Amino acid sequence: MPAMIQGNAVIGQSGGPTAVINQSLVGVVEKLREIGAGRPGSPIGRILGMRHGVRGLTKGEFHDLTDIERARLDRIAVTPSAALGSTRDKPDAAYCERIFDACRKHDIRYFFYIGGNDSSDACRIVNELARKAGYELRCFHIPKTVDNDLLVNDHTPGFPSAARFVAKACMADFLDNISLPGIKINVIMGRHAGFLTAASALARRHDREQGSTDGPQLIYLPEVPFDLDRFVHDVAEIYDRKGRCHIALSEGIQDAEGVAIGARLIKGAQVDAHGNVQLSGSGALGDQLADLLKEKLTPVGGKPPRVRADTFGYVQRCFPDASPIDQREARGAGHYAVELAVSGDSDGSVAITRTSTPGPWECYSVAFNRIELADVAAKTRHMPPEFIAGHNNVSLAFHDYCRPLVGPLPEFERFEGV
Amino acid sequence: MPAMIQGNAVIGQSGGPTAVINQSLVGVVEKLREIGAGRPGSPIGRILGMRHGVRGLTKGEFHDLTDIERARLDRIAVTPSAALGSTRDKPDAAYCERIFDACRKHDIRYFFYIGGNDSSDACRIVNELARKAGYELRCFHIPKTVDNDLLVNDHTPGFPSAARFVAKACMADFLDNISLPGIKINVIMGRHAGFLTAASALARRHDREQGSTDGPQLIYLPEVPFDLDRFVHDVAEIYDRKGRCHIALSEGIQDAEGVAIGARLIKGAQVDAHGNVQLSGSGALGDQLADLLKEKLTPVGGKPPRVRADTFGYVQRCFPDASPIDQREARGAGHYAVELAVSGDSDGSVAITRTSTPGPWECYSVAFNRIELADVAAKTRHMPPEFIAGHNNVSLAFHDYCRPLVGPLPEFERFEGV
Repeated sequence: MPAMIQGNAVIGQSGGPTAVINQSLVGVVEKLREIGAGRPGSPIGRILGMRHGVRGLTKGEFHDLTDIERARLDRIAVTPSAALGSTRDKPDAAYCERIFDACRKHDIRYFFYIGGNDSSDACRIVNELARKAGYELRCFHIPKTVDNDLLVNDHTPGFPSAARFVAKACMADFLDNISLPGIKINVIMGRHAGFLTAASALARRHDREQGSTDGPQLIYLPEVPFDLDRFVHDVAEIYDRKGRCHIALSEGIQDAEGVAIGARLIKGAQVDAHGNVQLSGSGALGDQLADLLKEKLTPVGGKPPRVRADTFGYVQRCFPDASPIDQREARGAGHYAVELAVSGDSDGSVAITRTSTPGPWECYSVAFNRIELADVAAKTRHMPPEFIAGHNNVSLAFHDYCRPLVGPLPEFERFEGV
Repeated sequence: MPAMIQGNAVIGQSGGPTAVINQSLVGVVEKLREIGAGRPGSPIGRILGMRHGVRGLTKGEFHDLTDIERARLDRIAVTPSAALGSTRDKPDAAYCERIFDACRKHDIRYFFYIGGNDSSDACRIVNELARKAGYELRCFHIPKTVDNDLLVNDHTPGFPSAARFVAKACMADFLDNISLPGIKINVIMGRHAGFLTAASALARRHDREQGSTDGPQLIYLPEVPFDLDRFVHDVAEIYDRKGRCHIALSEGIQDAEGVAIGARLIKGAQVDAHGNVQLSGSGALGDQLADLLKEKLTPVGGKPPRVRADTFGYVQRCFPDASPIDQREARGAGHYAVELAVSGDSDGSVAITRTSTPGPWECYSVAFNRIELADVAAKTRHMPPEFIAGHNNVSLAFHDYCRPLVGPLPEFERFEGV
């Protein structure tokens, strides 16, 4: 094992928080302390937490985590959202220069950053700047995003817990929908990738042979062009047959030209050819689609159908009911990043690879791997075609992929015919 | 003990479902079976579940629950939403005649109805019709509503579990808000009563001596007249000081004239003197208040404040994470209704009375009582003045009242200054 360079370690959290992002933070801290951080003779000096990510780093705003009490660390691990504070700053080249300057100033030799694809890109640029300057700086990206849209990774920490919330909320909401029948639209996070919306399929009582009659009956993903007329037709077909319809729909649905549906539906708004219009508010897409259905669907017995839309808001990314597997993996990804730092390998991003074959039997195992920062930096992964079924559903392969991630789901009972 | 009349028992569920409404259903069924329902010599014949409440009763649509397997009953009990199906029908006198006719037709002598104040009113009218006709029919109302707005009751089954969801969601969302600072509005259910919105206060890390600095910093209830200018002023004061603001707000907020704020804010809509305008969609109120804040608040560093609004939708009433106390009490209310039927007392509504004194020590106990149907029928309870503090907060007395109901809440850890 090559000798480690002497210096301080810095850790930051970036982008939208998750229910398990602090597990990764604690994973890094506890592993650095295991290898002696802050003790005489150790290559690692202080463990500095950046306040609000790289923004705090450039201002020299840190929490010193070197001597934090074990009990406090344990409580931080199970606390949702980013305990150090997060940031939406997307560092450009000039910003990365300032990050690099701060690293030099504070004698930082180990740089750990927990975040999505933008965060890994910042890691990559800072790393290159250091190399050009002949300053030894070890940069490690630890994956995090409820969108599940990082390349190479089987899935990313944060997604399983958010998927768990979506599945449980849709289970209960489907029962609500059959109890008081009507048309219900649930709008789910994921501007470019449909994984989280697809997780609503786990709310179905699943029968591999016969398929499922439990809702959501319709699932719309950003990966599949969305057509308003076809949508109305889909809903009408189910509503006419069942007197109710349960729909899961990504906030990022777009038409065949890539124009966001939300932007198209704002009445009287100026929309350019690329659909570059800000939605007026977070509930707008669901409300507009509900209005459209009320207008277009045939009244039953003289009464227009009862249509309601909920937009699952921020609560889906941080709800305090994390998937146990997600907690374990987020912590493990933190540990693994420190192992990379110790091993003498060069910089990189931690990736999760599945080592079991997805299938009806819920065997499940993963391994951590080091990949190049450039492999994930500023790139977006989408739902692969084999996870998508037709224009309004997900496949059994997606179900097999996602089911083990979310942890135990409740088993509910129903009377037939309700 | 007077002899019980011989006949069938019918049970129904009505109004918005809750996470524990099936506990009350199972409570009635298991207690009726305990006293021998369906067995030779028992005064109770069949146990009939109405499909979709009184609507199913008038059509003769039942689930026969007399011989349902114990294991299935146990699973039904922990299933959210109304297993028999619910209804929004509010029976008028003519409708109640049809209910009464159906009771006669199916030899029903025991009528159990789980619902809110409209349901208790239906019970009351059916009961009177039976008395006038000289038909012995025992009518029992079992309380249920997440709005917590039934008179006489200390609280109603369904509320504690919904309050638990609101508290946990606000805990996590507050941490989200301090991690990525901005202004966040959460719109919470309760068109006339503010109890559920008030439960957001349980998200605060509470210190009786020093008060709390944890969010939500502002809580707006339908009981307190809402003024748009004062709202903007309240938010600006906190935002200027902290750079962020976390707000809980009831969907039912109204101005001093009783006009719903949501109706007033719809741009270009016709609103009559009583505010009788349907909100265009479920996310509209939050979105409109967010737009108002973006427009009125002073930009910081040239940038308008980051304002987001979430409307906690149906998920808050049925989320599968019921309060243990709520589960127990909902089941107990079902048992108690059958005990009333056995005891020979006349008809009535089951009410929950607290027998412990609310205070900082979490001792907690309740008793069930029989009250007259007319005591709760078609009446609405509001937050009492002692639960309200100023125009944008709740009191410590509310906290002491609500805290024991929701069950254990997670304990989260924070770094100071984030």
